[in-house]
Amino acid sequence: MTRKVAVIMGSDSDLSVVAGAIEQLKEFGVPFEARVISAHRTPTQAENFARGAADAGFGVIIAAAGKAAHLGGVIAAYTTLPIIGLPIKSSALDGLDSLLSIVQMPPGIPVATVAIDGAQNAAILAAQILALSDAALAETLKAHKAAMAAKVLEKDRKLQEEVGKL
Amino acid sequence: MTRKVAVIMGSDSDLSVVAGAIEQLKEFGVPFEARVISAHRTPTQAENFARGAADAGFGVIIAAAGKAAHLGGVIAAYTTLPIIGLPIKSSALDGLDSLLSIVQMPPGIPVATVAIDGAQNAAILAAQILALSDAALAETLKAHKAAMAAKVLEKDRKLQEEVGKL
Amino acid sequence: MTRKVAVIMGSDSDLSVVAGAIEQLKEFGVPFEARVISAHRTPTQAENFARGAADAGFGVIIAAAGKAAHLGGVIAAYTTLPIIGLPIKSSALDGLDSLLSIVQMPPGIPVATVAIDGAQNAAILAAQILALSDAALAETLKAHKAAMAAKVLEKDRKLQEEVGKL
Amino acid sequence: MTRKVAVIMGSDSDLSVVAGAIEQLKEFGVPFEARVISAHRTPTQAENFARGAADAGFGVIIAAAGKAAHLGGVIAAYTTLPIIGLPIKSSALDGLDSLLSIVQMPPGIPVATVAIDGAQNAAILAAQILALSDAALAETLKAHKAAMAAKVLEKDRKLQEEVGKL
Amino acid sequence: MTRKVAVIMGSDSDLSVVAGAIEQLKEFGVPFEARVISAHRTPTQAENFARGAADAGFGVIIAAAGKAAHLGGVIAAYTTLPIIGLPIKSSALDGLDSLLSIVQMPPGIPVATVAIDGAQNAAILAAQILALSDAALAETLKAHKAAMAAKVLEKDRKLQEEVGKL
Amino acid sequence: MTRKVAVIMGSDSDLSVVAGAIEQLKEFGVPFEARVISAHRTPTQAENFARGAADAGFGVIIAAAGKAAHLGGVIAAYTTLPIIGLPIKSSALDGLDSLLSIVQMPPGIPVATVAIDGAQNAAILAAQILALSDAALAETLKAHKAAMAAKVLEKDRKLQEEVGKL
Amino acid sequence: MTRKVAVIMGSDSDLSVVAGAIEQLKEFGVPFEARVISAHRTPTQAENFARGAADAGFGVIIAAAGKAAHLGGVIAAYTTLPIIGLPIKSSALDGLDSLLSIVQMPPGIPVATVAIDGAQNAAILAAQILALSDAALAETLKAHKAAMAAKVLEKDRKLQEEVGKL
Amino acid sequence: MTRKVAVIMGSDSDLSVVAGAIEQLKEFGVPFEARVISAHRTPTQAENFARGAADAGFGVIIAAAGKAAHLGGVIAAYTTLPIIGLPIKSSALDGLDSLLSIVQMPPGIPVATVAIDGAQNAAILAAQILALSDAALAETLKAHKAAMAAKVLEKDRKLQEEVGKL
Repeated sequence: MTRKVAVIMGSDSDLSVVAGAIEQLKEFGVPFEARVISAHRTPTQAENFARGAADAGFGVIIAAAGKAAHLGGVIAAYTTLPIIGLPIKSSALDGLDSLLSIVQMPPGIPVATVAIDGAQNAAILAAQILALSDAALAETLKAHKAAMAAKVLEKDRKLQEEVGKL
Repeated sequence: MTRKVAVIMGSDSDLSVVAGAIEQLKEFGVPFEARVISAHRTPTQAENFARGAADAGFGVIIAAAGKAAHLGGVIAAYTTLPIIGLPIKSSALDGLDSLLSIVQMPPGIPVATVAIDGAQNAAILAAQILALSDAALAETLKAHKAAMAAKVLEKDRKLQEEVGKL
Repeated sequence: MTRKVAVIMGSDSDLSVVAGAIEQLKEFGVPFEARVISAHRTPTQAENFARGAADAGFGVIIAAAGKAAHLGGVIAAYTTLPIIGLPIKSSALDGLDSLLSIVQMPPGIPVATVAIDGAQNAAILAAQILALSDAALAETLKAHKAAMAAKVLEKDRKLQEEVGKL
Repeated sequence: MTRKVAVIMGSDSDLSVVAGAIEQLKEFGVPFEARVISAHRTPTQAENFARGAADAGFGVIIAAAGKAAHLGGVIAAYTTLPIIGLPIKSSALDGLDSLLSIVQMPPGIPVATVAIDGAQNAAILAAQILALSDAALAETLKAHKAAMAAKVLEKDRKLQEEVGKL
Repeated sequence: MTRKVAVIMGSDSDLSVVAGAIEQLKEFGVPFEARVISAHRTPTQAENFARGAADAGFGVIIAAAGKAAHLGGVIAAYTTLPIIGLPIKSSALDGLDSLLSIVQMPPGIPVATVAIDGAQNAAILAAQILALSDAALAETLKAHKAAMAAKVLEKDRKLQEEVGKL
Repeated sequence: MTRKVAVIMGSDSDLSVVAGAIEQLKEFGVPFEARVISAHRTPTQAENFARGAADAGFGVIIAAAGKAAHLGGVIAAYTTLPIIGLPIKSSALDGLDSLLSIVQMPPGIPVATVAIDGAQNAAILAAQILALSDAALAETLKAHKAAMAAKVLEKDRKLQEEVGKL
Repeated sequence: MTRKVAVIMGSDSDLSVVAGAIEQLKEFGVPFEARVISAHRTPTQAENFARGAADAGFGVIIAAAGKAAHLGGVIAAYTTLPIIGLPIKSSALDGLDSLLSIVQMPPGIPVATVAIDGAQNAAILAAQILALSDAALAETLKAHKAAMAAKVLEKDRKLQEEVGKL
Repeated sequence: MTRKVAVIMGSDSDLSVVAGAIEQLKEFGVPFEARVISAHRTPTQAENFARGAADAGFGVIIAAAGKAAHLGGVIAAYTTLPIIGLPIKSSALDGLDSLLSIVQMPPGIPVATVAIDGAQNAAILAAQILALSDAALAETLKAHKAAMAAKVLEKDRKLQEEVGKL
């Protein structure tokens, strides 16, 4: 049985970005749940969620947050599941604060960080992790990779046509 | 009765910097306790400490941490006491990560941030806050300010002598 | 008697951001006064204001400024009241200059810095400081914290509904 | 059977940092292989390694590199295994270039990035991923987390003693 | 016979910027081909293109990419032709990530980097390189330089007129 | 006789910003000339202008440029007149490149740098320099300073009214 | 009569850098006075000094400070003399905070900023300003410029010899 | 006949870094000349050198400079030869200022920039450019690339031995 992915975000204002992760998980057929959990405003929910995540059937947790983005680290404090940190560009500083707050975790408690607003990659990474024990998902990922290549090849072909016409 | 200041740090390796805060509090005669509490490695202690801090007689909490410095924010999640964040320059990025992780707190949960490695200022700020309801401490702060001015004046006098001799 | 909060800004163009602090103080019922005082263009007013602030009944001063934001530091030079620095994103550099000009104060004269454009947090921090000697305000802050948590829980519930429907 | 972790680095000069990952993997009893593979100087080896990694029994690949650190991305181009990027502070810019070159991967090809010089965390993250299908390793990780907490508690106890004596 | 310039880009979304290079090459009469080749999504095409570039008559390769921009480095790994890296401002961080990912290449494999979104300069640089063995192109470049100067002189004349009228 | 101010800019696209300097000089009644001179495209004009500037009656040169902004340094190489560097925010990097390219001049050749897009301040600084030997201009500057203060006081008065009404 | 240059610094710890300005002024024979004046610890001295500077015979003021470097701006608030800001690299952030705190002055109050730790250039700039009304000093500056060129030419000659021998 | 490479540096203090370029050119057997030429202190020499460089037999010019590094741009203003900019880490800001001052050249005048302190890469890039019309040099570059790969393979072999022994 494939474990679920949790997609949690510090604020519902992050949803427009996080939607990219949700869509990718759906496309892959990976079961998931989405939650608004704030490290600072609902810390008890964050703790309870993190403590119970493994038993609730989650295998990976994607934690999206902006500014002083503590959500991933706070969740990681209470579980040994792999946590994927998704920095949101919701700040004055274009997400540099979000990125550093997530990626620069001190020794002992890692958060696997993807690009600023890199929601799709957070989902692909989650799927890659789950695919280690899910052969069908592994095939899905290979097919997705091949499809991406095919799209680039098609764009390459079109570009050569267009430039040729100029 | 003057409330106590809590001086907590994410790692005992921060002590060499945090000592500057402790010395200043001692000089002011402000009661304090110092603790090693990690937002990520001892989150339960962090929560318990924060929840009980007001009842334990603390009025201000100085939280020192480096890198993805979540300690101040995690403490602030569980109490309405004022939290002073002290970013430690313990990182590859000269403390810029510590600073942004502390100061860029999202709306609702402030952390009063001082300079990178600004331990003495963290202590002075804590004293300024407590002095609002402690007239003797307020006088101590004014005297400290006057003493700082006197030191600068003395250095100014010496510099003019030295440069005059050149 | 609760002391007042002073909300001062270096330019009236900062008002659109600073309004967030004013609204929060009103919501809390904390008495305040708002002023335009420029560290560079009206330094005498800045000095006079700072020297007289304690006697005028102020307990905390929020100083908002952008670019080379000296207002907080200049005020702090003349008083031992706690000063909250609010960096305004009014600059080419997205407020990084404002932030560093405020937070990196040299030893002896702290300015309690909040996030870039973090006006609401400046107000909450001011209230937290005053609440140390104002039990009613302390209760207001706890209620505010609980209300924030309730809002997040409600958003979490809605998100789960929406995602469930997809 | 537990899959192996590959620990690859762009240059043998990175070994002093990467050793932290190797030691942690050994402590966990996670099988691993260490390699020097350069995305730019031995691209054929990089490609061959990446293409064959899954069949060779690897489950996770830690790719350490500095400056314009392309190794993680190059490996990720040829496999759907999860790749952990470890930015090395081997540069003029204190590793900021390494970090951005690794974490800011474009959509489609994620690299799970840890802190600059965060070798231990790269290993823990690798173990967390493998532990999803290795219950014994999951227990090891929980024990490691508990041991970290115990160490912090001990340091906290010592600090209180020391400060008490001052 | 003048060698061709290859203008490759990691994504067709880069074309709006890269068009500046194509137009400049056309104006110079330098033969070129434009391609979409992704270091991460079509690595085999990248390798094949790079390995065959010299024999296919290319003399210089302009590689445009954004975010963790590995394209230039990946191409440079397989050929000794000069590679011009063009960082695209397609990212949260205004192209700083693109720039550092391209310019900070480790010893042994250079990528000649131009400004963020500096497409025209990439083309001029390519022409300067080819002009070393193409006297006619060298004259074209001198004429272009003279024309640029003439345009500035004309603008200078106009400005003086306008300001004179004020 | 008051010396003239030269206001030179690297591109006529800088004029919209530089206009702020021109307007301020006009308001002060300081004679000036405006020119488009490019350090890179019309270097001979830059050299000739700089070599002849003192004899042509200029006392100060304001040099505005963006990106790799070499204009101020190039002018300063050929004259000992004070050069004011005005960094233009015309770049991907919000003018940080312009600022560093201007302010970080190596020993021996200073460029007096003002804020990014700080055109008005460039003009005021030029006037301050000329006012050292022009008592009337010195009075004008004092009056301008007083007028700025009066404006702030008026805004302060209005703000207090408005906030009072809320 | 040549006006004097004031060389003021926020802390006597800045003297090791500021000495470079003092030596250059001595070499030029420009009269100067050196002072330790802190914008934050001795604000009254700063104000009094600035208000009286013109009458005391000063023509230019060099203000050196580090971290949140407010000294130049505070002095500029009280005088219309030209102020040269010298950012000191005395901080965690390598002087970037000092630079931005000085150069990013808001409209109306310029500070002429030189490079981080650019003490010699601060002195040369001061001399250039005074030389506008001091023909002898203008000649000194031209001679200094010629001597710098001669030194570079000599180094160029030596380098060619050395490389020739290799 | 192979054209020569000019290796020019803004200060002889840059030689310790630039030596890496000189050694690489010698190893390749590429003729070169090394010069100290300052854009700011010997601008006439810079102009004369640049104007005469093509006729003097130079094919590529490597320009090394630190801080506000204008040398490459100044040389590029007077010639259409390809200019390679080598940013030197000689500054407070770890070479970020050098890098941006060189790479962010405005449209029309490119400078081919390599990594901060990337002297070896500057030389390899110069050789790659010259090799377009020098078949023997092209072979030398291929052999150098192969030798680099062989070194990495040898280090890979050794690492595997060492780790195996642990």
